[in-house]
Amino acid sequence: MQFPSPVSIQWMASFIEAKVIGDDSSHATGINEIHKVSKGDLVFVDHPKYYDKCINSDASFIIINKEMDIPEGKALLVVENPFEAYCKIVHHFRPFEPSTKLISDTAVMGSDCFIYPGVFIGHHVTIGKNTIIYPNVTIMDHCIIGDNVIIQSGSVIGSNGFYYNTKKNRDVWYKKMPDCGRVIIEDDVEIGAGCTIDRGVSHDTILGRGTKLDNMVHIGHDTVVGKNCLMAAQVAIAGAATLEDGVTLWGQVGVSKTLTIGENAVVFAQSGVGGDLEGGKNYFGSPVQDAKLKQRELVWVKRIPELWDKVMGKKGE
Amino acid sequence: MQFPSPVSIQWMASFIEAKVIGDDSSHATGINEIHKVSKGDLVFVDHPKYYDKCINSDASFIIINKEMDIPEGKALLVVENPFEAYCKIVHHFRPFEPSTKLISDTAVMGSDCFIYPGVFIGHHVTIGKNTIIYPNVTIMDHCIIGDNVIIQSGSVIGSNGFYYNTKKNRDVWYKKMPDCGRVIIEDDVEIGAGCTIDRGVSHDTILGRGTKLDNMVHIGHDTVVGKNCLMAAQVAIAGAATLEDGVTLWGQVGVSKTLTIGENAVVFAQSGVGGDLEGGKNYFGSPVQDAKLKQRELVWVKRIPELWDKVMGKKGE
Amino acid sequence: MQFPSPVSIQWMASFIEAKVIGDDSSHATGINEIHKVSKGDLVFVDHPKYYDKCINSDASFIIINKEMDIPEGKALLVVENPFEAYCKIVHHFRPFEPSTKLISDTAVMGSDCFIYPGVFIGHHVTIGKNTIIYPNVTIMDHCIIGDNVIIQSGSVIGSNGFYYNTKKNRDVWYKKMPDCGRVIIEDDVEIGAGCTIDRGVSHDTILGRGTKLDNMVHIGHDTVVGKNCLMAAQVAIAGAATLEDGVTLWGQVGVSKTLTIGENAVVFAQSGVGGDLEGGKNYFGSPVQDAKLKQRELVWVKRIPELWDKVMGKKGE
Repeated sequence: MQFPSPVSIQWMASFIEAKVIGDDSSHATGINEIHKVSKGDLVFVDHPKYYDKCINSDASFIIINKEMDIPEGKALLVVENPFEAYCKIVHHFRPFEPSTKLISDTAVMGSDCFIYPGVFIGHHVTIGKNTIIYPNVTIMDHCIIGDNVIIQSGSVIGSNGFYYNTKKNRDVWYKKMPDCGRVIIEDDVEIGAGCTIDRGVSHDTILGRGTKLDNMVHIGHDTVVGKNCLMAAQVAIAGAATLEDGVTLWGQVGVSKTLTIGENAVVFAQSGVGGDLEGGKNYFGSPVQDAKLKQRELVWVKRIPELWDKVMGKKGE
Repeated sequence: MQFPSPVSIQWMASFIEAKVIGDDSSHATGINEIHKVSKGDLVFVDHPKYYDKCINSDASFIIINKEMDIPEGKALLVVENPFEAYCKIVHHFRPFEPSTKLISDTAVMGSDCFIYPGVFIGHHVTIGKNTIIYPNVTIMDHCIIGDNVIIQSGSVIGSNGFYYNTKKNRDVWYKKMPDCGRVIIEDDVEIGAGCTIDRGVSHDTILGRGTKLDNMVHIGHDTVVGKNCLMAAQVAIAGAATLEDGVTLWGQVGVSKTLTIGENAVVFAQSGVGGDLEGGKNYFGSPVQDAKLKQRELVWVKRIPELWDKVMGKKGE
Repeated sequence: MQFPSPVSIQWMASFIEAKVIGDDSSHATGINEIHKVSKGDLVFVDHPKYYDKCINSDASFIIINKEMDIPEGKALLVVENPFEAYCKIVHHFRPFEPSTKLISDTAVMGSDCFIYPGVFIGHHVTIGKNTIIYPNVTIMDHCIIGDNVIIQSGSVIGSNGFYYNTKKNRDVWYKKMPDCGRVIIEDDVEIGAGCTIDRGVSHDTILGRGTKLDNMVHIGHDTVVGKNCLMAAQVAIAGAATLEDGVTLWGQVGVSKTLTIGENAVVFAQSGVGGDLEGGKNYFGSPVQDAKLKQRELVWVKRIPELWDKVMGKKGE
């Protein structure tokens, strides 16, 4: 999330009752998560394991629970509970704005759109031209939808991401990270029935131009999908993944978080992608591997009995 | 289901035109299925294969299609068609009560709840304090929802279970078991978008305190989920399963019916759980096994060609 | 799709500005896709790879981008862009008819139906007797629903199929095939919560009498499901598949397109069906195989270390 205007570190420190170490005269321009940060961003860290990564990232301002040295031009905001401090800031800039109307007065729509009955459109939503939203679709706050987009029935755009702060010594182990990202759906995207597109926790969830989703596809928070991608039914992509242009995922493929699938890669049905995949190739399996390798492996498994018989002398079965 | 008040066996016998064998002076306190019965419960059985299991279960009253001996303090209700008799009783105590309003007048809600537009709330629903129900959610009859609960858009709470009486000599093989259970969602539970939580067929479907579900998670009838469990997107759990506290299921995991997953077990993405799992361990695969064993197996498969070459003398490919 | 009345080839040629080769005096009775065509049907083809298949199919009239010889009694309609011509015809006979009402005035309903609040019913929908439609269901245009049908909350009937015309040299690679098929749900079918049943692109999507679907089942366009089939949660079936009577698919099974699963076949959970399956057998695995073979394979894999030790002399780990 970009702040509406740069926020002074002094105001921030006073707001969350933090001690500032480092440059306290500058301004934060936005909030972001560690995988997506850039200069001017504010992040938080509360586990010693991630202190160094955070301090040496592109983030300029770090909410942290330990006093440490900090490179020139950056600042630490030291508090006892960085997660609570972070939540306070997000809630301040993105307060819960419940809507009592099916379509918020703040929604902006282009010409030649058709919105069927039973559609909910939340606050601060922009929809382009010539877009069709089918019955019983839900579009939550802060979504941006392009021209010639089709969203079929029952789909949910801008649901909250599945992203929790975990402490197993609490009574309730998991506390939701409040989110301040958006969903951006570019022109010519088509979304099937019963899909769910989570909004970014701090960055944006993006579906690139011309990408098509079949029914019941799940796209996690902060995931960026390129142009002309194709996803068949019941594909699920976890948070903060990157799909480059022209990626095809066949039915029921699962994709793990914070990884990259390269341009024009094709992943066959029911595969499970747990790490980066190079573009321009075919993949199969759970865990996924090169499709030809996997096919060969399936053949090799069928040859074990022959091997057994040769080695053990016909005692296989 | 507990009956509103104990029901005399004589009334029951007359209602379903049954002959009573055994103690006809006592009262049934509820209906339950064979996996969950306790003393005072009424069950039905129509297949000889299950006669003994039923008669020797904790159930006190058995609707059955054969005259048999029955232990002291129990009673048989003998009818020609136990399934039809059972349905008649369930329909009597849980009649179909269609609702013509989006929110039934019988719904009870705590303070500081927010119900978005497009939500349906059926009869006899109780919702605690500080709970948010997002647009286009459906909450059917007889659900109990706690404090600080979040249910995201498009989710369905209290749908009918997938539980059929099967006879392949009928024109229509499968006849739905009418259900009389509930869904109980405890405090601090969060349910993603597009989830479906079936109500119990005769027992309750329960999500324990602090449990979090990602999008498109399916929870079958009569399944009991402990506290602080975590389920990623597109997990499906069949009927009458038990998940103890702190269980984590990663994306697209499938869990079969009437099994138990032990405390703090972790099941990796796309795994298929077909039987009980011991707590405190990691699991992977379809069918699932100990995660380290499975990882080792994946390596072993890759070594088959080397083995082949050694044994067969380079004829592998 | 059958045309409302036979359409003269001369009118058609003039409408899409085509040159007719062959018999220009006859009439087309309907549109269909190449897997489902019969005599009198119109199809289109734009790739040389499929010219012969199309011309030698049962179709009588072929929109094509090349002048060729054509068998007696058939006709070619030659245009530069067959896909655009095909779209123009479909849009003419099935114009986009947006509905501003939750239930269209054209819907026809039998006696003793109950439609819950929040249900959308589009144009030209017929519903039989004694059918229950639960809250927040969407039934799009041109669906035919039988007697004693149950459709649970959040399900979508008649969504557009996932079927695209692909040209990777365009800015937007994928262009949706406009659809003109229907969904036909026969008597005694029950559909769980959160299901999606796509309508046929040109043929009909059919669920046969007495078939039962659990929650979150996806049925692709033009798929024909027989009588008394059973599908557990999160099954997905791609387009134009055929399931004969009595087929059982357990949870999270995936089925590819344009294949046939034989009568009474049973496919175990999480399996992936990529080709035809013979009836009366059990199947398991991704890719699927005979269940007993697959079970044996799982055992063989566990024996590799023993084999390794024997051959390599205890160097396995």
